[in-house]
Amino acid sequence: MAAQLHRDAVVIDGLIVAKWDRDLFEGMRRGGLTAANCTVSIWEGLGDTVDQIAQMNALIEANADCLLKVHTTADIERAKREGRTGVILGFQNATAFEDRLGYVQIFKDLGVGVVQLCYNTQNLVGTGCYERDGGLSGFGREILAEMNRVGILCDLSHVGPNTAREAIAESRKPVCYSHCLPSGLKDHPRNKSDAELKFIADHGGFVGVTMFTPFLKNGVNSTVDDYVEAIRYVFDLVGEENVGIGTDFTQGHDAAFFARLVHDKGYARRLTNFGEIVNPLGIRTVAEYPNLTAALLKGGFTPTQARRIMGENWLRVLKDVWGE
Amino acid sequence: MAAQLHRDAVVIDGLIVAKWDRDLFEGMRRGGLTAANCTVSIWEGLGDTVDQIAQMNALIEANADCLLKVHTTADIERAKREGRTGVILGFQNATAFEDRLGYVQIFKDLGVGVVQLCYNTQNLVGTGCYERDGGLSGFGREILAEMNRVGILCDLSHVGPNTAREAIAESRKPVCYSHCLPSGLKDHPRNKSDAELKFIADHGGFVGVTMFTPFLKNGVNSTVDDYVEAIRYVFDLVGEENVGIGTDFTQGHDAAFFARLVHDKGYARRLTNFGEIVNPLGIRTVAEYPNLTAALLKGGFTPTQARRIMGENWLRVLKDVWGE
Repeated sequence: MAAQLHRDAVVIDGLIVAKWDRDLFEGMRRGGLTAANCTVSIWEGLGDTVDQIAQMNALIEANADCLLKVHTTADIERAKREGRTGVILGFQNATAFEDRLGYVQIFKDLGVGVVQLCYNTQNLVGTGCYERDGGLSGFGREILAEMNRVGILCDLSHVGPNTAREAIAESRKPVCYSHCLPSGLKDHPRNKSDAELKFIADHGGFVGVTMFTPFLKNGVNSTVDDYVEAIRYVFDLVGEENVGIGTDFTQGHDAAFFARLVHDKGYARRLTNFGEIVNPLGIRTVAEYPNLTAALLKGGFTPTQARRIMGENWLRVLKDVWGE
Repeated sequence: MAAQLHRDAVVIDGLIVAKWDRDLFEGMRRGGLTAANCTVSIWEGLGDTVDQIAQMNALIEANADCLLKVHTTADIERAKREGRTGVILGFQNATAFEDRLGYVQIFKDLGVGVVQLCYNTQNLVGTGCYERDGGLSGFGREILAEMNRVGILCDLSHVGPNTAREAIAESRKPVCYSHCLPSGLKDHPRNKSDAELKFIADHGGFVGVTMFTPFLKNGVNSTVDDYVEAIRYVFDLVGEENVGIGTDFTQGHDAAFFARLVHDKGYARRLTNFGEIVNPLGIRTVAEYPNLTAALLKGGFTPTQARRIMGENWLRVLKDVWGE
């Protein structure tokens, strides 16, 4: 029954930052993934980000049996019908906007559907979660208004608490934590307090729950059931229509990749130390999404709730923000 | 006697952002200007800033009878001997460093001697004086350490109060307000309180006093004597060895130039409104520096004090920071 439900469900992952290759794309299809927010910019400016989008476009073209590019939620529905995985281009930082409000529309036109305002540290729009956070800047308010206007979902996962709170209050459209965990289960600068999770939900926002083991209570010993426990925790706080998944799959990456993540700008001072990177047992690869659906049902979620968590809720919030 | 003193003095202006042309350069020479911190970057990134430096280099070459380029204080002394004006390349923003610590050395090698950390708003290193200021960022501390290492003077004139205070405390070399006025004479976001002026002096820092009339008590009706009053006010707070001039001459620029200054990134939201731009009577152009020396003497400063204010103090602090 779980397998059947998974096959029928729209499965949307709020954050994947894996190594983009054929092996991964086949795993996504095998795992029944309908669409995912796929990171194409972290520390890069305009030029390098456009190059990374061009590379992703070429991969989508070359692997069209597995993938299609997502501009609207109709593309996600088409991906479901055709048994492919829709690629939503996403940024984990506003760096690619540089100092140009006009780049927001440019990137929307290139297919970017989700942008995190800050990645770990301060940029022109606000500050990330690994340093003191002075809040949303004046330019940040202008960028957010432009994201609202063109229809790009604002992501606050790696954003500092003050910038996040102000962005939630400022945005005229729903915003999200695409991939976060509750600090109620483990205290960590990247995890969100009960008050923060309630605040975003109370303002019409959305929470994708991640499974990155350094932020989970049981660390590298976590299983898919620990992931379900975290989903349950968030579900109870934000309500069953405002929660989804955002795995943060980093599949295929090497140590150099993780070193870039934990240093400011990709190379400057070290911000944190993850230790060993291993996904929870039962959902180590993108081929294993069916195990998560099964674990949700085993964990007491109803079939309707499981379908919402696995993707229906994401689909709704994306449509709210994109407008189509 | 004032004219003779001016002719003998080293005259250093801590900030000029004028339209760079032959007319200006001849005025500088006529005014007896020995050297000035000449702005070559405000909102620009690497590429445009390098272009502006290349243009300035070409102007220096083409006007070698009036100008020479300054890398060290020996170049300033040579300018004095030869009756030319030394051009110190300066930034009013750290934007040109982009997200690269390595660009600090690059620009030092190109002749950049003074860099203001922020211009009016938030950037990667801190926040300017026209918005809420969350203080010096982690990356800002790294940039400042690198400026200390290579020998670039840190300027805090347009920087917000929290970022400025933390930069003063953090720097291992003297820092400056290259062009500011006391809020004790007129309350304005760009002016500095008595406590701020004392704080920088107590930490070995330096204050260049500006004469930009929107920040002066008597506004567009100011004369060179109002400028001297402001210099006296700062002199009394910071001591006679820590004060100089930083006129902020904008000579030759049109309305489009000022519009760029008062909009974030040069084009985004408006930050302030200057109203009419006119320099104090008696020092409307760069040819009129001798009037300032005369006014200082008339205002009760001794010849030694006047020489220090007009340039000797600047020369010392530049040597402290540049090391040569």
